[in-house]
Amino acid sequence: MHIDVLTLFPEMIEGVFQASILKKAQEKEKFSYNLVNFRDYSTNKHMKVDDYPYGGGAGMVLTPQPVFDAVEAVTNDKETKPRIILMCPQGEPYSQQKAEELAEEDHLLFICGHYEGYDERIREHLVTDEISIGDYVLTGGELGAMVVIDSVVRLLPDVLGNEASAPEDSFSTGLLEHPHYTRPANFRGMKVPEILLSGDHGKIAAWRRNESLKRTYERRRDLIDEATLSEADKKVLNEINQNKC
Amino acid sequence: MHIDVLTLFPEMIEGVFQASILKKAQEKEKFSYNLVNFRDYSTNKHMKVDDYPYGGGAGMVLTPQPVFDAVEAVTNDKETKPRIILMCPQGEPYSQQKAEELAEEDHLLFICGHYEGYDERIREHLVTDEISIGDYVLTGGELGAMVVIDSVVRLLPDVLGNEASAPEDSFSTGLLEHPHYTRPANFRGMKVPEILLSGDHGKIAAWRRNESLKRTYERRRDLIDEATLSEADKKVLNEINQNKC
Repeated sequence: MHIDVLTLFPEMIEGVFQASILKKAQEKEKFSYNLVNFRDYSTNKHMKVDDYPYGGGAGMVLTPQPVFDAVEAVTNDKETKPRIILMCPQGEPYSQQKAEELAEEDHLLFICGHYEGYDERIREHLVTDEISIGDYVLTGGELGAMVVIDSVVRLLPDVLGNEASAPEDSFSTGLLEHPHYTRPANFRGMKVPEILLSGDHGKIAAWRRNESLKRTYERRRDLIDEATLSEADKKVLNEINQNKC
Repeated sequence: MHIDVLTLFPEMIEGVFQASILKKAQEKEKFSYNLVNFRDYSTNKHMKVDDYPYGGGAGMVLTPQPVFDAVEAVTNDKETKPRIILMCPQGEPYSQQKAEELAEEDHLLFICGHYEGYDERIREHLVTDEISIGDYVLTGGELGAMVVIDSVVRLLPDVLGNEASAPEDSFSTGLLEHPHYTRPANFRGMKVPEILLSGDHGKIAAWRRNESLKRTYERRRDLIDEATLSEADKKVLNEINQNKC
Protein backbone atom coordinates (compact mmCIF):
# COMPACT_ATOMS: atom_id res chain seq x y z
CA MET A 1 0.00 0.00 0.00
CA HIS A 2 1.14 3.54 -0.75
CA ILE A 3 -0.20 6.51 1.21
CA ASP A 4 0.07 10.20 0.25
CA VAL A 5 -0.74 12.83 2.84
CA LEU A 6 -1.38 16.41 1.71
CA THR A 7 -0.75 18.71 4.64
CA LEU A 8 0.51 22.19 5.51
CA PHE A 9 2.30 20.70 8.56
CA PRO A 10 4.35 17.71 7.40
CA GLU A 11 6.73 18.15 10.35
CA MET A 12 3.77 17.61 12.69
CA ILE A 13 3.18 14.04 11.57
CA GLU A 14 6.57 12.85 10.32
CA GLY A 15 7.35 11.42 13.78
CA VAL A 16 4.20 9.32 13.84
CA PHE A 17 5.35 7.44 10.73
CA GLN A 18 8.73 6.79 12.33
CA ALA A 19 7.55 4.89 15.41
CA SER A 20 6.04 1.60 16.48
CA ILE A 21 3.90 -0.42 14.06
CA LEU A 22 3.99 2.16 11.24
CA LYS A 23 7.79 2.07 11.26
CA LYS A 24 7.85 -1.73 11.33
CA ALA A 25 5.34 -1.94 8.48
CA GLN A 26 7.67 0.16 6.33
CA GLU A 27 10.67 -1.97 7.26
CA LYS A 28 8.68 -5.01 6.20
CA GLU A 29 7.83 -3.14 2.96
CA LYS A 30 4.11 -3.42 3.61
CA PHE A 31 3.55 0.26 2.97
CA SER A 32 5.27 3.45 1.92
CA TYR A 33 4.27 7.07 2.42
CA ASN A 34 4.83 10.51 1.00
CA LEU A 35 4.11 13.81 2.76
CA VAL A 36 3.16 16.61 0.36
CA ASN A 37 3.01 20.21 1.51
CA PHE A 38 0.34 21.56 -0.82
CA ARG A 39 1.52 25.10 -0.16
CA ASP A 40 4.30 24.22 -2.63
CA TYR A 41 1.63 24.03 -5.35
CA SER A 42 0.12 27.47 -4.74
CA THR A 43 0.32 29.71 -7.82
CA ASN A 44 -0.25 32.75 -5.60
CA LYS A 45 2.84 34.97 -5.47
CA HIS A 46 2.80 34.86 -1.66
CA MET A 47 2.17 31.08 -1.70
CA LYS A 48 -1.17 31.65 0.00
CA VAL A 49 -3.46 28.62 0.33
CA ASP A 50 -6.45 30.25 2.01
CA ASP A 51 -8.66 33.28 1.58
CA TYR A 52 -11.70 34.98 3.14
CA PRO A 53 -15.05 33.22 2.78
CA TYR A 54 -17.49 34.51 0.17
CA GLY A 55 -20.53 35.83 1.97
CA GLY A 56 -18.51 36.94 5.01
CA GLY A 57 -17.90 35.33 8.36
CA ALA A 58 -14.97 34.49 10.59
CA GLY A 59 -12.10 32.22 9.67
CA MET A 60 -10.26 31.40 6.48
CA VAL A 61 -11.15 28.87 3.78
CA LEU A 62 -8.70 26.68 1.82
CA THR A 63 -8.74 27.69 -1.83
CA PRO A 64 -9.27 24.98 -4.45
CA GLN A 65 -6.22 25.66 -6.65
CA PRO A 66 -3.32 24.34 -4.54
CA VAL A 67 -5.28 21.26 -3.45
CA PHE A 68 -6.43 20.31 -6.98
CA ASP A 69 -2.94 20.86 -8.39
CA ALA A 70 -1.22 18.89 -5.62
CA VAL A 71 -3.60 15.93 -6.01
CA GLU A 72 -3.05 15.93 -9.76
CA ALA A 73 0.72 16.11 -9.42
CA VAL A 74 0.71 13.12 -7.07
CA THR A 75 -1.71 10.99 -9.08
CA ASN A 76 -1.00 11.86 -12.72
CA ASP A 77 1.68 9.24 -13.26
CA LYS A 78 -0.45 6.50 -11.70
CA GLU A 79 -2.50 4.08 -13.80
CA THR A 80 -5.31 3.85 -11.29
CA LYS A 81 -6.73 6.68 -9.22
CA PRO A 82 -6.33 6.37 -5.45
CA ARG A 83 -9.07 6.78 -2.90
CA ILE A 84 -8.95 10.51 -2.18
CA ILE A 85 -9.98 11.03 1.42
CA LEU A 86 -10.92 14.36 2.94
CA MET A 87 -10.67 14.55 6.72
CA CYS A 88 -13.54 16.74 7.98
CA PRO A 89 -16.17 16.90 10.74
CA GLN A 90 -18.93 16.60 8.14
CA GLY A 91 -17.61 13.25 6.91
CA GLU A 92 -18.82 9.70 7.37
CA PRO A 93 -18.20 8.60 10.98
CA TYR A 94 -15.11 6.39 10.93
CA SER A 95 -15.50 2.77 11.99
CA GLN A 96 -13.57 -0.48 12.13
CA GLN A 97 -15.61 -1.63 9.12
CA LYS A 98 -14.34 1.36 7.11
CA ALA A 99 -10.76 0.55 8.22
CA GLU A 100 -11.18 -2.97 6.86
CA GLU A 101 -12.54 -1.59 3.58
CA LEU A 102 -9.63 0.85 3.15
CA ALA A 103 -7.10 -1.90 4.01
CA GLU A 104 -8.08 -3.57 0.71
CA GLU A 105 -6.84 -0.61 -1.36
CA ASP A 106 -3.40 -0.18 -2.98
CA HIS A 107 -3.22 3.59 -2.77
CA LEU A 108 -4.78 6.11 -0.39
CA LEU A 109 -4.45 9.88 -0.53
CA PHE A 110 -5.42 12.01 2.48
CA ILE A 111 -6.20 15.74 2.33
CA CYS A 112 -5.71 17.44 5.70
CA GLY A 113 -7.13 20.92 6.04
CA HIS A 114 -6.49 23.54 8.64
CA TYR A 115 -8.31 26.81 9.31
CA GLU A 116 -12.05 27.20 9.04
CA GLY A 117 -12.75 24.76 6.24
CA TYR A 118 -12.37 23.61 2.64
CA ASP A 119 -13.74 25.33 -0.43
CA GLU A 120 -16.80 23.26 -1.26
CA ARG A 121 -15.53 22.52 -4.80
CA ILE A 122 -12.77 20.32 -3.33
CA ARG A 123 -15.45 18.27 -1.63
CA GLU A 124 -17.74 18.07 -4.66
CA HIS A 125 -15.29 17.51 -7.50
CA LEU A 126 -12.10 15.99 -6.14
CA VAL A 127 -12.57 13.61 -3.24
CA THR A 128 -13.96 10.06 -3.13
CA ASP A 129 -14.45 9.80 0.64
CA GLU A 130 -15.08 12.20 3.50
CA ILE A 131 -14.21 10.84 6.92
CA SER A 132 -14.73 12.17 10.43
CA ILE A 133 -13.00 10.31 13.27
CA GLY A 134 -15.54 11.54 15.83
CA ASP A 135 -17.93 14.26 16.96
CA TYR A 136 -15.36 16.68 18.29
CA VAL A 137 -13.50 19.59 16.72
CA LEU A 138 -9.78 19.44 15.92
CA THR A 139 -7.53 22.23 14.63
CA GLY A 140 -6.72 20.27 11.48
CA GLY A 141 -7.07 17.01 9.61
CA GLU A 142 -3.60 15.66 10.35
CA LEU A 143 -4.39 13.76 13.56
CA GLY A 144 -7.51 12.29 11.97
CA ALA A 145 -5.51 11.12 8.95
CA MET A 146 -2.92 9.52 11.24
CA VAL A 147 -5.68 7.75 13.17
CA VAL A 148 -7.09 6.32 9.95
CA ILE A 149 -3.63 5.37 8.64
CA ASP A 150 -2.66 3.64 11.89
CA SER A 151 -5.91 1.67 12.02
CA VAL A 152 -5.60 0.63 8.35
CA VAL A 153 -1.90 -0.27 8.24
CA ARG A 154 -2.17 -2.56 11.27
CA LEU A 155 -4.73 -4.60 9.32
CA LEU A 156 -2.39 -5.21 6.36
CA PRO A 157 -1.21 -8.84 6.10
CA ASP A 158 1.89 -9.66 8.19
CA VAL A 159 2.13 -6.24 9.82
CA LEU A 160 1.15 -7.23 13.35
CA GLY A 161 3.50 -9.59 15.13
CA ASN A 162 2.94 -11.49 18.33
CA GLU A 163 2.78 -8.30 20.33
CA ALA A 164 -0.77 -7.60 19.20
CA SER A 165 -3.54 -9.61 17.72
CA ALA A 166 -6.14 -8.11 15.42
CA PRO A 167 -9.03 -10.59 15.63
CA GLU A 168 -9.57 -10.41 19.40
CA ASP A 169 -9.60 -6.61 19.63
CA SER A 170 -12.51 -4.61 20.91
CA PHE A 171 -14.96 -3.93 18.06
CA SER A 172 -13.66 -6.85 15.99
CA THR A 173 -15.89 -9.15 18.06
CA GLY A 174 -18.58 -6.49 18.41
CA LEU A 175 -18.06 -6.37 22.20
CA LEU A 176 -15.63 -4.53 24.45
CA GLU A 177 -12.65 -6.60 25.51
CA HIS A 178 -12.53 -8.50 28.81
CA PRO A 179 -10.08 -7.33 31.52
CA HIS A 180 -6.42 -8.32 31.21
CA TYR A 181 -4.07 -9.16 34.06
CA THR A 182 -0.35 -9.85 34.12
CA ARG A 183 2.43 -10.22 36.69
CA PRO A 184 2.68 -9.77 39.61
CA ALA A 185 -0.30 -11.75 40.93
CA ASN A 186 -0.32 -9.44 43.94
CA PHE A 187 0.63 -5.81 43.33
CA ARG A 188 0.51 -3.67 46.50
CA GLY A 189 -2.31 -5.87 47.79
CA MET A 190 -4.31 -5.69 44.54
CA LYS A 191 -4.80 -9.25 43.40
CA VAL A 192 -5.43 -11.01 40.11
CA PRO A 193 -8.76 -12.93 40.05
CA GLU A 194 -8.20 -16.52 41.24
CA ILE A 195 -9.78 -18.06 38.17
CA LEU A 196 -7.02 -16.73 35.88
CA LEU A 197 -4.45 -18.63 37.95
CA SER A 198 -6.48 -21.88 37.92
CA GLY A 199 -5.20 -23.29 34.61
CA ASP A 200 -8.78 -24.33 33.70
CA HIS A 201 -8.99 -23.01 30.15
CA GLY A 202 -12.70 -23.70 29.73
CA LYS A 203 -13.60 -21.75 32.85
CA ILE A 204 -11.20 -18.94 31.93
CA ALA A 205 -12.77 -18.59 28.47
CA ALA A 206 -16.25 -18.47 29.99
CA TRP A 207 -15.17 -15.91 32.60
CA ARG A 208 -13.64 -13.71 29.89
CA ARG A 209 -16.74 -13.87 27.74
CA ASN A 210 -18.91 -12.98 30.73
CA GLU A 211 -16.68 -10.04 31.68
CA SER A 212 -16.74 -8.84 28.08
CA LEU A 213 -20.54 -9.00 28.03
CA LYS A 214 -20.80 -7.31 31.42
CA ARG A 215 -18.45 -4.50 30.47
CA THR A 216 -20.21 -3.88 27.18
CA TYR A 217 -23.60 -3.92 28.90
CA GLU A 218 -22.46 -1.41 31.51
CA ARG A 219 -20.52 0.96 29.27
CA ARG A 220 -21.78 0.68 25.72
CA ARG A 221 -25.24 -0.86 25.64
CA ASP A 222 -25.53 0.41 22.03
CA LEU A 223 -22.98 -2.23 20.97
CA ILE A 224 -24.95 -5.14 22.49
CA ASP A 225 -27.77 -4.65 19.97
CA GLU A 226 -25.33 -5.02 17.07
CA ALA A 227 -23.30 -7.95 18.42
CA THR A 228 -23.66 -11.61 17.44
CA LEU A 229 -24.72 -13.38 20.63
CA SER A 230 -24.94 -17.08 21.47
CA GLU A 231 -27.71 -18.58 23.61
CA ALA A 232 -25.21 -18.73 26.49
CA ASP A 233 -24.45 -15.00 26.00
CA LYS A 234 -28.14 -14.15 26.14
CA LYS A 235 -28.52 -16.10 29.38
CA VAL A 236 -25.60 -14.16 30.92
CA LEU A 237 -27.14 -10.86 29.85
CA ASN A 238 -30.47 -11.86 31.35
CA GLU A 239 -28.75 -12.57 34.65
CA ILE A 240 -26.90 -9.24 34.58
CA ASN A 241 -30.19 -7.54 33.83
CA GLN A 242 -31.99 -9.23 36.74
CA ASN A 243 -29.22 -8.40 39.20
CA LYS A 244 -29.69 -4.72 38.35
CA CYS A 245 -33.38 -4.75 39.24
CA MET B 1 -2.98 24.12 31.81
CA HIS B 2 -0.26 21.52 32.23
CA ILE B 3 -0.40 18.18 30.41
CA ASP B 4 1.67 15.07 31.16
CA VAL B 5 1.72 12.24 28.64
CA LEU B 6 2.96 8.81 29.72
CA THR B 7 4.08 6.94 26.62
CA LEU B 8 6.60 4.38 25.39
CA PHE B 9 6.98 6.39 22.17
CA PRO B 10 7.63 10.04 23.08
CA GLU B 11 9.40 10.62 19.75
CA MET B 12 6.18 9.66 17.96
CA ILE B 13 4.23 12.61 19.32
CA GLU B 14 6.86 15.26 20.03
CA GLY B 15 6.30 16.74 16.54
CA VAL B 16 2.58 17.18 17.11
CA PHE B 17 3.27 19.50 20.06
CA GLN B 18 5.66 21.56 17.94
CA ALA B 19 3.25 22.58 15.17
CA SER B 20 0.26 24.77 14.52
CA ILE B 21 -2.12 25.70 17.35
CA LEU B 22 -0.40 23.57 20.00
CA LYS B 23 2.88 25.37 19.33
CA LYS B 24 1.19 28.78 19.41
CA ALA B 25 -0.62 27.93 22.64
CA GLN B 26 2.74 27.21 24.29
CA GLU B 27 4.24 30.43 22.94
CA LYS B 28 1.29 32.30 24.46
CA GLU B 29 1.97 30.37 27.72
CA LYS B 30 -1.54 28.90 27.73
CA PHE B 31 -0.24 25.41 28.29
CA SER B 32 2.89 23.37 28.91
CA TYR B 33 3.55 19.67 28.43
CA ASN B 34 5.85 16.93 29.61
CA LEU B 35 6.42 13.59 27.85
CA VAL B 36 7.27 10.76 30.26
CA ASN B 37 8.58 7.44 29.01
CA PHE B 38 7.25 5.12 31.69
CA ARG B 39 9.77 2.48 30.69
CA ASP B 40 12.23 4.63 32.68
CA TYR B 41 10.27 3.70 35.82
CA SER B 42 10.41 -0.06 35.33
CA THR B 43 12.10 -1.85 38.24
CA ASN B 44 12.63 -4.90 36.02
CA LYS B 45 16.30 -5.48 35.28
CA HIS B 46 15.59 -5.56 31.53
CA MET B 47 13.33 -2.47 31.83
CA LYS B 48 10.36 -4.56 30.72
CA VAL B 49 6.94 -2.92 30.89
CA ASP B 50 4.77 -5.80 29.68
CA ASP B 51 4.29 -9.50 30.34
CA TYR B 52 2.15 -12.46 29.27
CA PRO B 53 -1.51 -12.39 30.27
CA TYR B 54 -2.63 -14.55 33.20
CA GLY B 55 -4.99 -17.20 31.90
CA GLY B 56 -3.26 -17.39 28.52
CA GLY B 57 -4.02 -15.80 25.19
CA ALA B 58 -2.20 -13.81 22.51
CA GLY B 59 -0.57 -10.46 23.04
CA MET B 60 1.22 -8.75 25.89
CA VAL B 61 -0.26 -6.79 28.78
CA LEU B 62 1.21 -3.65 30.39
CA THR B 63 2.27 -4.42 33.96
CA PRO B 64 1.01 -2.13 36.73
CA GLN B 65 4.36 -1.28 38.37
CA PRO B 66 5.94 1.15 35.84
CA VAL B 67 2.63 2.95 35.24
CA PHE B 68 1.80 3.40 38.94
CA ASP B 69 5.34 4.56 39.71
CA ALA B 70 5.48 6.99 36.79
CA VAL B 71 2.13 8.55 37.70
CA GLU B 72 3.24 8.95 41.31
CA ALA B 73 6.57 10.49 40.30
CA VAL B 74 4.80 13.06 38.13
CA THR B 75 2.05 13.93 40.62
CA ASN B 76 3.66 13.60 44.04
CA ASP B 77 4.92 17.18 44.24
CA LYS B 78 1.56 18.60 43.16
CA GLU B 79 -0.97 19.93 45.66
CA THR B 80 -3.97 18.75 43.68
CA LYS B 81 -4.28 15.50 41.77
CA PRO B 82 -4.71 15.80 38.02
CA ARG B 83 -7.36 14.08 35.95
CA ILE B 84 -5.67 10.79 35.07
CA ILE B 85 -6.93 9.72 31.68
CA LEU B 86 -6.51 6.25 30.21
CA MET B 87 -6.84 6.05 26.42
CA CYS B 88 -8.56 2.76 25.58
CA PRO B 89 -11.26 1.29 23.31
CA GLN B 90 -13.37 0.39 26.35
CA GLY B 91 -13.53 4.04 27.46
CA GLU B 92 -16.28 6.63 27.37
CA PRO B 93 -16.85 7.73 23.76
CA TYR B 94 -15.14 11.11 23.36
CA SER B 95 -17.30 14.13 22.54
CA GLN B 96 -17.10 17.89 22.21
CA GLN B 97 -18.88 18.11 25.55
CA LYS B 98 -16.09 16.11 27.21
CA ALA B 99 -13.52 18.41 25.53
CA GLU B 100 -15.25 21.41 27.11
CA GLU B 101 -15.27 19.69 30.49
CA LEU B 102 -11.53 18.87 30.33
CA ALA B 103 -10.72 22.42 29.18
CA GLU B 104 -11.77 23.62 32.66
CA GLU B 105 -9.00 21.61 34.36
CA ASP B 106 -5.53 22.87 35.36
CA HIS B 107 -3.70 19.57 34.95
CA LEU B 108 -4.33 16.53 32.78
CA LEU B 109 -2.30 13.33 32.70
CA PHE B 110 -2.68 10.86 29.83
CA ILE B 111 -1.65 7.19 29.95
CA CYS B 112 -1.01 5.78 26.47
CA GLY B 113 -0.75 2.02 26.22
CA HIS B 114 0.56 -0.12 23.44
CA TYR B 115 0.33 -3.88 22.93
CA GLU B 116 -2.73 -5.93 23.86
CA GLY B 117 -3.94 -3.91 26.81
CA TYR B 118 -3.51 -2.61 30.34
CA ASP B 119 -3.42 -4.65 33.53
CA GLU B 120 -6.89 -4.15 34.97
CA ARG B 121 -5.52 -2.81 38.27
CA ILE B 122 -4.35 0.36 36.44
CA ARG B 123 -7.92 0.90 35.31
CA GLU B 124 -9.48 0.15 38.69
CA HIS B 125 -7.13 1.88 41.09
CA LEU B 126 -5.26 4.63 39.28
CA VAL B 127 -7.25 6.43 36.60
CA THR B 128 -10.09 8.95 36.88
CA ASP B 129 -11.28 8.80 33.25
CA GLU B 130 -11.22 6.25 30.45
CA ILE B 131 -11.64 7.73 26.98
CA SER B 132 -12.10 6.17 23.56
CA ILE B 133 -11.91 8.49 20.55
CA GLY B 134 -14.03 6.15 18.41
CA ASP B 135 -15.06 2.58 17.59
CA TYR B 136 -11.92 1.55 15.73
CA VAL B 137 -8.72 -0.13 16.84
CA LEU B 138 -5.39 1.73 17.01
CA THR B 139 -1.95 0.33 17.78
CA GLY B 140 -1.58 2.57 20.83
CA GLY B 141 -3.06 5.37 22.86
CA GLU B 142 -0.75 8.13 21.60
CA LEU B 143 -2.87 9.32 18.66
CA GLY B 144 -5.99 9.27 20.81
CA ALA B 145 -4.26 11.36 23.49
CA MET B 146 -3.11 13.86 20.85
CA VAL B 147 -6.66 14.10 19.49
CA VAL B 148 -7.99 14.86 22.98
CA ILE B 149 -5.17 17.34 23.72
CA ASP B 150 -5.67 19.19 20.42
CA SER B 151 -9.42 19.46 20.92
CA VAL B 152 -9.00 20.68 24.52
CA VAL B 153 -6.14 23.17 24.03
CA ARG B 154 -7.93 24.97 21.20
CA LEU B 155 -10.78 25.69 23.64
CA LEU B 156 -8.51 27.42 26.19
CA PRO B 157 -9.07 31.20 26.39
CA ASP B 158 -7.09 33.26 23.84
CA VAL B 159 -5.58 30.24 22.04
CA LEU B 160 -7.49 30.53 18.78
CA GLY B 161 -6.80 33.62 16.73
CA ASN B 162 -8.68 34.92 13.73
CA GLU B 163 -7.73 31.89 11.69
CA ALA B 164 -10.34 29.75 13.38
CA SER B 165 -13.43 30.36 15.40
CA ALA B 166 -14.63 27.93 18.04
CA PRO B 167 -18.33 28.81 18.42
CA GLU B 168 -19.34 28.24 14.78
CA ASP B 169 -17.68 24.86 14.39
CA SER B 170 -19.51 21.70 13.55
CA PHE B 171 -20.89 20.09 16.75
CA SER B 172 -20.71 23.36 18.70
CA THR B 173 -24.05 24.31 17.11
CA GLY B 174 -25.25 20.71 17.13
CA LEU B 175 -25.39 20.68 13.32
CA LEU B 176 -22.81 20.04 10.60
CA GLU B 177 -21.33 23.20 9.12
CA HIS B 178 -22.64 24.81 5.94
CA PRO B 179 -20.44 24.78 2.79
CA HIS B 180 -17.65 27.34 2.52
CA TYR B 181 -16.45 29.03 -0.66
CA THR B 182 -13.53 31.34 -1.33
CA ARG B 183 -11.68 32.84 -4.31
CA PRO B 184 -11.78 32.41 -7.26
CA ALA B 185 -15.51 32.76 -7.97
CA ASN B 186 -14.97 30.57 -11.02
CA PHE B 187 -12.39 27.79 -10.72
CA ARG B 188 -12.07 25.69 -13.91
CA GLY B 189 -15.76 26.33 -14.61
CA MET B 190 -16.88 25.41 -11.08
CA LYS B 191 -18.71 28.39 -9.72
CA VAL B 192 -19.52 29.81 -6.31
CA PRO B 193 -23.29 30.00 -5.59
CA GLU B 194 -24.64 33.41 -6.71
CA ILE B 195 -26.19 34.18 -3.36
CA LEU B 196 -22.78 34.35 -1.64
CA LEU B 197 -21.74 37.12 -4.04
CA SER B 198 -24.99 39.09 -3.51
CA GLY B 199 -23.95 41.08 -0.44
CA ASP B 200 -27.37 40.41 1.13
CA HIS B 201 -26.35 39.30 4.61
CA GLY B 202 -29.84 38.26 5.69
CA LYS B 203 -30.28 35.96 2.71
CA ILE B 204 -26.75 34.59 3.08
CA ALA B 205 -27.37 33.73 6.74
CA ALA B 206 -30.64 31.96 5.84
CA TRP B 207 -28.97 30.05 2.97
CA ARG B 208 -26.17 28.91 5.27
CA ARG B 209 -28.57 27.73 7.96
CA ASN B 210 -30.59 25.82 5.34
CA GLU B 211 -27.47 24.18 3.90
CA SER B 212 -26.34 23.24 7.39
CA LEU B 213 -29.74 21.66 8.11
CA LYS B 214 -29.78 19.89 4.75
CA ARG B 215 -26.29 18.47 5.16
CA THR B 216 -26.99 17.28 8.68
CA TYR B 217 -30.26 15.70 7.57
CA GLU B 218 -28.58 13.88 4.69
CA ARG B 219 -25.42 12.74 6.47
CA ARG B 220 -26.04 12.57 10.19
CA ARG B 221 -29.75 12.38 10.93
CA ASP B 222 -28.82 11.26 14.46
CA LEU B 223 -27.60 14.80 15.20
CA ILE B 224 -30.89 16.44 14.17
CA ASP B 225 -32.70 14.84 17.09
CA GLU B 226 -30.24 16.39 19.55
CA ALA B 227 -30.02 19.87 17.99
CA THR B 228 -31.83 23.00 19.19
CA LEU B 229 -34.10 23.96 16.30
CA SER B 230 -36.11 27.13 15.66
CA GLU B 231 -39.59 27.12 14.11
CA ALA B 232 -37.97 28.27 10.83
CA ASP B 233 -35.53 25.31 11.03
CA LYS B 234 -38.40 22.88 11.49
CA LYS B 235 -40.16 24.31 8.45
CA VAL B 236 -37.01 23.85 6.37
CA LEU B 237 -36.67 20.25 7.54
CA ASN B 238 -40.30 19.57 6.69
CA GLU B 239 -39.67 20.84 3.17
CA ILE B 240 -36.54 18.70 2.77
CA ASN B 241 -38.52 15.73 4.02
CA GLN B 242 -41.35 16.31 1.54
CA ASN B 243 -38.97 16.70 -1.41
CA LYS B 244 -37.56 13.27 -0.64
CA CYS B 245 -40.94 11.55 -0.85
